[in-house]
Amino acid sequence: MTPSAASHAPTRPVLDLSRTGAELTADLVDIPSVSGDEGAIADAVEAALRQLPHLTVERDGHAVVARTHLGRRERVVLAGHLDTVPIADNVPSRVEGDFIYGCGTSDMKSGVAVQLRIAATVPEPNRDITFVFYDCEEVEARRNGLGRLARNHPEWLQADFAVLLEGTNGVVEGGCQGTLRAEIRTTGVRAHSARSWLGDNAIHKAAPILERLAGYRPRLVDIEGLQYHEGLNAVRVEGGVANNVIPDECLVVVNYRFAPDRSVEEASRHVEEVFAGFDVVVTDYAAGALPGLTQPAAAEFVAATGGTPRAKFGWTDVARFSALGVPAVNCGPGDPNLAHTRDEHCSLSAIADLEKRMRAWLQS
Amino acid sequence: MTPSAASHAPTRPVLDLSRTGAELTADLVDIPSVSGDEGAIADAVEAALRQLPHLTVERDGHAVVARTHLGRRERVVLAGHLDTVPIADNVPSRVEGDFIYGCGTSDMKSGVAVQLRIAATVPEPNRDITFVFYDCEEVEARRNGLGRLARNHPEWLQADFAVLLEGTNGVVEGGCQGTLRAEIRTTGVRAHSARSWLGDNAIHKAAPILERLAGYRPRLVDIEGLQYHEGLNAVRVEGGVANNVIPDECLVVVNYRFAPDRSVEEASRHVEEVFAGFDVVVTDYAAGALPGLTQPAAAEFVAATGGTPRAKFGWTDVARFSALGVPAVNCGPGDPNLAHTRDEHCSLSAIADLEKRMRAWLQS
Repeated sequence: MTPSAASHAPTRPVLDLSRTGAELTADLVDIPSVSGDEGAIADAVEAALRQLPHLTVERDGHAVVARTHLGRRERVVLAGHLDTVPIADNVPSRVEGDFIYGCGTSDMKSGVAVQLRIAATVPEPNRDITFVFYDCEEVEARRNGLGRLARNHPEWLQADFAVLLEGTNGVVEGGCQGTLRAEIRTTGVRAHSARSWLGDNAIHKAAPILERLAGYRPRLVDIEGLQYHEGLNAVRVEGGVANNVIPDECLVVVNYRFAPDRSVEEASRHVEEVFAGFDVVVTDYAAGALPGLTQPAAAEFVAATGGTPRAKFGWTDVARFSALGVPAVNCGPGDPNLAHTRDEHCSLSAIADLEKRMRAWLQS
Repeated sequence: MTPSAASHAPTRPVLDLSRTGAELTADLVDIPSVSGDEGAIADAVEAALRQLPHLTVERDGHAVVARTHLGRRERVVLAGHLDTVPIADNVPSRVEGDFIYGCGTSDMKSGVAVQLRIAATVPEPNRDITFVFYDCEEVEARRNGLGRLARNHPEWLQADFAVLLEGTNGVVEGGCQGTLRAEIRTTGVRAHSARSWLGDNAIHKAAPILERLAGYRPRLVDIEGLQYHEGLNAVRVEGGVANNVIPDECLVVVNYRFAPDRSVEEASRHVEEVFAGFDVVVTDYAAGALPGLTQPAAAEFVAATGGTPRAKFGWTDVARFSALGVPAVNCGPGDPNLAHTRDEHCSLSAIADLEKRMRAWLQS
């Protein structure tokens, strides 16, 4: 059987922004968009936004940026990623009671639904708004769509404040900690283990590295009323040649998570000091981000949306805004502990609640 | 082309025991006999020994045992293995100056040549002699031909003293140290490294294990005038789940080499004591062997062959004789440091020298 050309024409999914945030979450989950394959969902988002006369719409790859141009004194960003981790038999979505289940419900199509609802229903906000929808958040950093926008069109991202709608159970999480990895290596001399005194055991020489880690007291740092909690940990140790050979090399990989009052340079120096006397090589790092909650736009966001902000420990894309000079927080309806799980789900009332709080902030 | 049956008949190598030890070494090297493929060399050894009327000859798989039956007050074993590690472009043998090069020259066809020379040229020794030629010494212990003989025909191996002609540069090396491996495992709780206080780092908990190893003082033990040198070493360490995860397991594998005054049980207990408080699992072990140099046959061997005996540190097949109640030493013309090397070679004068010393012992 030769199928006709028509039978191969892709169905272009359409988003109806008059539907509720819960319904839009379902519509978004039902458009598969695993990282690298966000074309269909970006097309649907772009097409829906182009129906709104109060927005100008830009496109870069599978990222879409829509802006109001009302000449307000402040501009804020509402940002979210369109991609998901690989689907785990959990698409299409389904609703049970107050919960919607499916890949991306929590991370973070529920947040994207809130962005789209605000775009459609707040045509005259009290501050100019930039809506950012981007691709490839769930994969290696060099592919990140927000990073690409920052390189290609930094002017599209200029603002006084940004909210990333990544799942936080609706709480405001400020800034983020930085992260740095380093390899600490000991070397020795190989020998047959029957004549071990002819060698020099590199694994034994790693004892002080593990001792210093075991005795390390991480800093607790208060910044703008938020408490950050650092950590310095071995995430890998490996050494050994064969069961009868004195090993000549041992590697300990450590991960330092540092509060945003420290720069990457200061963090590197700290790790080198902790392991003074050893060969320390920093292999990768990402700067943290200060919460910026003392900025007026941020303070008003916290006041309008309610609740007590807390520090963000994990590294997130808010640091990309911070690097552009834009204070940023995370605040989304999803539950971060459900991200990437087969059982991923999101509370429908949490979606409606955040939409209401966002509207209150932008219409006050 | 259909080859005739005759053209497929294997050439059966023949050993002429009237040739010198150097020549016999070359002949033996030129019969490839990688472990598991000792049929041709065992056939050649068996056929040559069956020409000697003063010996009875037994066969078990690729092992050959030949004995005198002169009713002497003592019986001694001269033992050697017929197999080699895989050939490394170093067969056939070649002679340069005083050295013969090739796979097995040092480990240990030069020793086998001395055994064959004694068998052929000492028809009326002053003590009964059992010549043992065996297979699969270079591979895993369960395949070892001497172990198989000990299980199938322990009566063939009964004697007052045994010499293994493994390479020792002609020195008498007495007994051997035991070996024991143990796994020491720490456990913890996984967590994201950005929130490390929610986890429990198993790698950090391994610090005291490495500390105890680094501070360990091995025993030096004098037994029958030989100094044994123990060692307790990490031979492997591994832990780590991912670069952003607090690891929940860390494994340290230690190898304890112990002097033959300690049994396996005592050695196990010692390792458990050193790592008290940790989960220690002994995974494999082999008992050591006392030198037995105070036995008359052994003392006369040392006196007749000259030189100062020394302790054997590595585990060798002498422990198999020891387990049968037969004191045993290593003494062979090869250089142990050349075993398993591409450049393996053996001194021709060392072969002639050991043959002369063996003859002096057995004809005195």
